[in-house]
Amino acid sequence: MAPSLEDTTTDTSAAGVDDELAAVKSRVTVVGSGNWGSVASKLIASNTLNLHSFHDEVRMWVFEEILPTGEKLSEIINRTNENVKYLPGIKLGKNVVADPDLENAVRDANMLVFVTPHQFMEGICKRIVGKIRNDAEAISLIKGMEVKKEGPCMISSLISDQLGINCCVLMGANIANEIAVEKFSEATVGYRKNKEMADKWVQLFNTSYFMVSAVQDVEGVELCGTLKNVVAIAAGFVDGLDMGNNTKAAIMRIGLREMKAFSKLLFPSVKDTTFFESCGVADLITTCLGGRNRKCAEAFARNGGKRSFDELEAEMLQGQKLQGVSTAKELYEVLSHQGWLERFPLFSTVHKICIGHLPPAAIVEYTKP
Amino acid sequence: MAPSLEDTTTDTSAAGVDDELAAVKSRVTVVGSGNWGSVASKLIASNTLNLHSFHDEVRMWVFEEILPTGEKLSEIINRTNENVKYLPGIKLGKNVVADPDLENAVRDANMLVFVTPHQFMEGICKRIVGKIRNDAEAISLIKGMEVKKEGPCMISSLISDQLGINCCVLMGANIANEIAVEKFSEATVGYRKNKEMADKWVQLFNTSYFMVSAVQDVEGVELCGTLKNVVAIAAGFVDGLDMGNNTKAAIMRIGLREMKAFSKLLFPSVKDTTFFESCGVADLITTCLGGRNRKCAEAFARNGGKRSFDELEAEMLQGQKLQGVSTAKELYEVLSHQGWLERFPLFSTVHKICIGHLPPAAIVEYTKP
Repeated sequence: MAPSLEDTTTDTSAAGVDDELAAVKSRVTVVGSGNWGSVASKLIASNTLNLHSFHDEVRMWVFEEILPTGEKLSEIINRTNENVKYLPGIKLGKNVVADPDLENAVRDANMLVFVTPHQFMEGICKRIVGKIRNDAEAISLIKGMEVKKEGPCMISSLISDQLGINCCVLMGANIANEIAVEKFSEATVGYRKNKEMADKWVQLFNTSYFMVSAVQDVEGVELCGTLKNVVAIAAGFVDGLDMGNNTKAAIMRIGLREMKAFSKLLFPSVKDTTFFESCGVADLITTCLGGRNRKCAEAFARNGGKRSFDELEAEMLQGQKLQGVSTAKELYEVLSHQGWLERFPLFSTVHKICIGHLPPAAIVEYTKP
Repeated sequence: MAPSLEDTTTDTSAAGVDDELAAVKSRVTVVGSGNWGSVASKLIASNTLNLHSFHDEVRMWVFEEILPTGEKLSEIINRTNENVKYLPGIKLGKNVVADPDLENAVRDANMLVFVTPHQFMEGICKRIVGKIRNDAEAISLIKGMEVKKEGPCMISSLISDQLGINCCVLMGANIANEIAVEKFSEATVGYRKNKEMADKWVQLFNTSYFMVSAVQDVEGVELCGTLKNVVAIAAGFVDGLDMGNNTKAAIMRIGLREMKAFSKLLFPSVKDTTFFESCGVADLITTCLGGRNRKCAEAFARNGGKRSFDELEAEMLQGQKLQGVSTAKELYEVLSHQGWLERFPLFSTVHKICIGHLPPAAIVEYTKP
């Protein structure tokens, strides 16, 4: 079991008041310790140290790995305050405590931050259900989600349903490594009803270089995070075809419009204004400027579609798979199932190009409104 | 006087019907023949040839110049169908007739397309007032506008007021040279009341590679075209400071938000949805990816603000001046006059950086919401 970290802040107020405060202070656990999870822990840890309404300690669940040196990842993190594997060179803060025991990590927390690959979430929920506090609140930072035939399986809903707790989301133009070195960035918290809780999440994440704001639109915020990867594939095709900035901007705009239309068809509560937030237009821009989806799609188009995405991913991503390609496939199934293919020419064309049924140049020919 | 071009289309219908049709056919004149004016003429000319509701001939007013060969620009255009000076290598269409005589060019037209540098418009209006058809309709493609202390002087209003005619606008992510080679692009027509007229403008401009749609929001569309240049300066600073894509996307998003807020403060009729159109988010993206404003601002930041914009413009733009720098100055005066400086941190900071009152890095420090 990981060591516990006692509050080290000293208060000028009386000891009795301190005890009372300690009882109502929130305890935060971050479930996940990859690249983004480590950066999230760093952001949170800098705030819990300074804000009296939180316990200093931030517990971070680490999926244990034995490193080539023979040492355990969680032990190195606790010794060096650094996630040497997923965020080397960045100090997380001394109040981040790595814990390889999932159940132990979540037991005392009333604020649970989920930031794992999306395919692990169902298993994690099964392991911790009934073992968390009754008053726990959750937030999901998980950008990928499964899109099933009948519609997307929202990770926030999965968490809410499986654990019986409320779940917000945090999305945005967030390249983890840029935030790790404290470059200015923004993010959006999506919440369902409880504005006070949303404000508390904002307080927990917001720093001088990471500006967070809250909107009452969980589904809108969460869908942005997934759908933008499909648009990034389209933008990559345009880059690979050397069609210029006009065309790229047009394709991004049409993509944003399809993101909005699709989200609103599935969830009529989704708000137009959400797409002006960091999770919307800003994340779309970041993903279409840099990002793996755009890059591999550019290579795909440069090769005239003659080398498959599987081949390019193997070569360019060291075995990782592109979110955008699989989301485009899942999305196509939804559109087809719902009879919406013609209403979403960009989404459907991206999939047809990815599987080789259309040439890359179709991204413009078939997407025109 | 320039030669006249007779309709060469033959109709299978009876001659009497042809005469009647000819009487109601619209006649188009393009006032302006620079880079964008020439591309606009090409777009229009391909449509008037195919659509029976327009006369084939597109008259294009040319500000006469004598080229180094001794030939007149208008004569070369009429001989070669090419604007050798401002759009070399592109055929405009045989039905484009260059006319150096402004009054003659506009006399018979009932559809006037204005596409000149904005500072010429007042003089042009003075020259043609009272010399145009009573039923003439106008559209402005002019992106720059003057922003006076009391607010922007909209070019569409100038045209409407001075000529006593209705004026729409057409804006969008429109890099003229990319449209000239028929790369896919979009544009937005803004209209005030007359939807039928807006549809006619759409018909006149829309081609398979230039997709135009209409929104009832003249001011919103027109303001996008001007304000985006200020945001592009901000984006250029971020590039010059090597702050990465996250920060750039955040600054672009904040810029879009200020564009929207400013436009709505000045004209409460401005619609949120306009900013999702090509004139909004797409034009902003194009301008912040490429574009002179972005490029010079990047150079400015790389030099730590030690070389002035005047100097950089002279070096990088062959004597042309940056729209964004002067718009930022004018905008600052409006904000200051109205007491809105604090509500528009990005707009005001761009100006302060341009004049050397703040360092380039302030674009992030001072812009945070």
